[in-house]
Amino acid sequence: MKNDILSQLDAVLEARKSESPDTSYVASLYAKGIDKILKKVGEEATETVMAAKDAEHTGKTDNLVYEVADLWFHTLILLSQQGRSGDDVMQELQRRFGLSGHDEKASRSQNDS
Amino acid sequence: MKNDILSQLDAVLEARKSESPDTSYVASLYAKGIDKILKKVGEEATETVMAAKDAEHTGKTDNLVYEVADLWFHTLILLSQQGRSGDDVMQELQRRFGLSGHDEKASRSQNDS
Amino acid sequence: MKNDILSQLDAVLEARKSESPDTSYVASLYAKGIDKILKKVGEEATETVMAAKDAEHTGKTDNLVYEVADLWFHTLILLSQQGRSGDDVMQELQRRFGLSGHDEKASRSQNDS
Amino acid sequence: MKNDILSQLDAVLEARKSESPDTSYVASLYAKGIDKILKKVGEEATETVMAAKDAEHTGKTDNLVYEVADLWFHTLILLSQQGRSGDDVMQELQRRFGLSGHDEKASRSQNDS
Repeated sequence: MKNDILSQLDAVLEARKSESPDTSYVASLYAKGIDKILKKVGEEATETVMAAKDAEHTGKTDNLVYEVADLWFHTLILLSQQGRSGDDVMQELQRRFGLSGHDEKASRSQNDS
Repeated sequence: MKNDILSQLDAVLEARKSESPDTSYVASLYAKGIDKILKKVGEEATETVMAAKDAEHTGKTDNLVYEVADLWFHTLILLSQQGRSGDDVMQELQRRFGLSGHDEKASRSQNDS
Repeated sequence: MKNDILSQLDAVLEARKSESPDTSYVASLYAKGIDKILKKVGEEATETVMAAKDAEHTGKTDNLVYEVADLWFHTLILLSQQGRSGDDVMQELQRRFGLSGHDEKASRSQNDS
Repeated sequence: MKNDILSQLDAVLEARKSESPDTSYVASLYAKGIDKILKKVGEEATETVMAAKDAEHTGKTDNLVYEVADLWFHTLILLSQQGRSGDDVMQELQRRFGLSGHDEKASRSQNDS
C-alpha cells in the first residue's frame, strides 16, 4: 500500500498540519476543530445521498463519484485530525474481508460483514 | 492500484451481484435497492459523527476507524450498485491532488480542493 | 400551547418512560439508550432528504410530510430522553422569531435567524 | 392550532416568498433551491447528533434544544418550498397517535408508530 493514492493523501494531510490556515483549506479545518470537520462530514454525506437520488432518476453517475470523493476526503481529514489515517481504514477492511495487501491474488473473501 | 485493498473490495462487491440475498449481506442490500443502501449510508455517517464525538471526549479512536470503515464500505456498495467503483473515487482524488498512482514519489499536491 | 399536538406528544413520550420495552417502541428506544436514538435520528434525516429528492423529481410530496413527521418524532424522543421537550423547541423558535404564543395576532417577525 | 407557534412560523415562511434574497435568509434559501435547503437539513441533523453527544458527556442540554430548533426550522423551510407546511406534519402525527387537536383532553394515544 506504500505508494498508492490513499497513502499519498495521508501524507498530504499530515503535511497540512504545519501549513497556514490562511492558505490551506485543510489547515483551516484543523484550526477550526473537530466540530467544524464533523459538520462537513455530515454535509458531504447528505450530498452523497442527494447525488445518488439524482443518479437514480437521471442515470448519470459522475456527480455521485465526485460526492463520494468529497465524503471520503473529509473523513480522511477527520482521521488525520484524530491521529489516525486512511491506511488504518484499509487495514480494518482488509481484516474484515480476509483480503491480501501484498500480492495480486484474487479476492479470497468468504464472508460479508 | 491493481493489487490493493480497494480494488480487491471492488471485485468482492462485483462478485456479490451473482450471489443469493439469503446468504450474502451485500447481495441482500442490492436486492433491496438504492433507498435501503442510502439509509445505511446515512446511518453509518451518523455513527461516524457519534464515534468522533466519543473520541473527542474519551481520547479513544479505534471505534472511529471502525465506523469510517463501515461508512466507506457502504458507499462502495452504493457505487457498485450504480455501476461505479472505489477505483473511480481514487482516480477523482488523484486528479484533484495531482497524485501519482504508479510510483513511489512523495506527494506533489500543491493545492487543496 | 397547552392543548396542542406537540404538548400531547410530549405527554405521550413522558408516559412511555414507565412502560415496558417489550410492548412500546418508544420504551424500547429509551431502554437501548441515546446512541440507538441518534442512529434513528440520522436515518430519518437521510430519509427526509431522499423523500425531498423524490418529490423534486416526481412532484409528489406526501411521503416528504411523512418522513419529516418521522424525523420530528424521533427528535422528540431524543429530547424526552434528555429531559427536554418539544415545548422547549417551540419556545426557542418563538424567542428567535418574536412570535406570540398566546394570541391570534399575525406573525410579527421582522428578521430571520 | 390556528394561533400557535408552528402556524405562525408557517405564515412567516410563506411571507418570505415575496421578499428579497438579499435581505432575508429564508428568501435566499428559496432562491438557491432545494439542494441548498437539503444540505442545510443534513448539516443541522449532524449538529443535532453532535449536540446530543456533548449533552451525554457534559449533562448540558440547552445546545441540544437550540440545534433541534435549527433542524425543525430548516425542515419547515423545505416543506414550505415544496408547498407543504408544519401543520401538515402535525396532522400526520395527530393521525398516527390518535391525538386531539381541538380540545384539552389528555393524550389518548394507544399505540406507537
